[in-house]
Amino acid sequence: MELLEERILRDGTVKPGNVLKVDNFLNHQVDIELIHAMADEFCRLFADCPITKVLTIEASGIAIASIVAEQLGVPMVFAKKAQSINLDGDLYTTQIVSYTHKRTYDVIVSKKFISPDDHVLIIDDFLANGCALNGLIDLVTQAGATIEGIGIAIEKGFQPGGDDLRERGYRLESLAIVDAMNADTGEIVFRH
Amino acid sequence: MELLEERILRDGTVKPGNVLKVDNFLNHQVDIELIHAMADEFCRLFADCPITKVLTIEASGIAIASIVAEQLGVPMVFAKKAQSINLDGDLYTTQIVSYTHKRTYDVIVSKKFISPDDHVLIIDDFLANGCALNGLIDLVTQAGATIEGIGIAIEKGFQPGGDDLRERGYRLESLAIVDAMNADTGEIVFRH
Repeated sequence: MELLEERILRDGTVKPGNVLKVDNFLNHQVDIELIHAMADEFCRLFADCPITKVLTIEASGIAIASIVAEQLGVPMVFAKKAQSINLDGDLYTTQIVSYTHKRTYDVIVSKKFISPDDHVLIIDDFLANGCALNGLIDLVTQAGATIEGIGIAIEKGFQPGGDDLRERGYRLESLAIVDAMNADTGEIVFRH
Repeated sequence: MELLEERILRDGTVKPGNVLKVDNFLNHQVDIELIHAMADEFCRLFADCPITKVLTIEASGIAIASIVAEQLGVPMVFAKKAQSINLDGDLYTTQIVSYTHKRTYDVIVSKKFISPDDHVLIIDDFLANGCALNGLIDLVTQAGATIEGIGIAIEKGFQPGGDDLRERGYRLESLAIVDAMNADTGEIVFRH
């Protein structure tokens, strides 16, 4: 998606350790106008899918998932990193390793909110190793629901998560795929 | 706001320990159509304010804040519970006690995203003791920006946070104020 690639080139910063900082428009300050355009694109890409629910994981996927769900006219569910005393009842649980935070999270979704009848579109802001996405896929699979597709804002194509999901047959649409980036020069190369 | 009160009465559950569970439409599964109506109401209530930015805190305020920011045509910023290695540079920092999670968080916002010129609308899903809101107010105050108002989905009017903020002169608009609730009977009484 050209608009997103241009924005990454303009406002993104490459940091050592394969970090692409996009906190001025995607995951700290959020440019809702850009998010709206991205949501339009996801809706176009998955127009043939009978989506009943948008699923993401807290926190930085929530803004995009909300606007996508708004445009599709379906509820949005965000999986939670388990720590709340307000969660009770039957839960689907999975574990997600976060390389960013160097820890493992228990991630949950209430059984009430994904049923076998659901057709789920999974949305997230980043895809690198695929840990978060595989956790979300596990939750949907436990629920017996159908995964219609996966929509990602920025995929790090030089890490294995995306290609692994494609090989396993998931319909994965990433709006920008970064195939290479260099913290010394700031260069970013997109896959086309 | 009648629509929200009706929804709380229909789908909310009162639990022991002053817990009002609204996870089927507000903070786990999110009814985006309802959120949209709530955002319309916030926009009406703050229509005379020259808002340049919507501020919330991760995670459950992000959905509402996103839709409000979308309708106002301004960026949304979410304060982060500090744990990420991807945060760097100059940060405003504050501490927030979470009664729900029984711990204290360092909460940060990058100095890049709130400037003295900003007119900020703070949005969150719940207001009880006001710990999260006072942390957000502290961050905006550190930035030297103007707080135009505070928009809350559900205020627990029997806890002191809301009335304390009103006494201090903040323009606080809560779409539903619960003045009493009973975990044994399930009764919920709204302030009007």
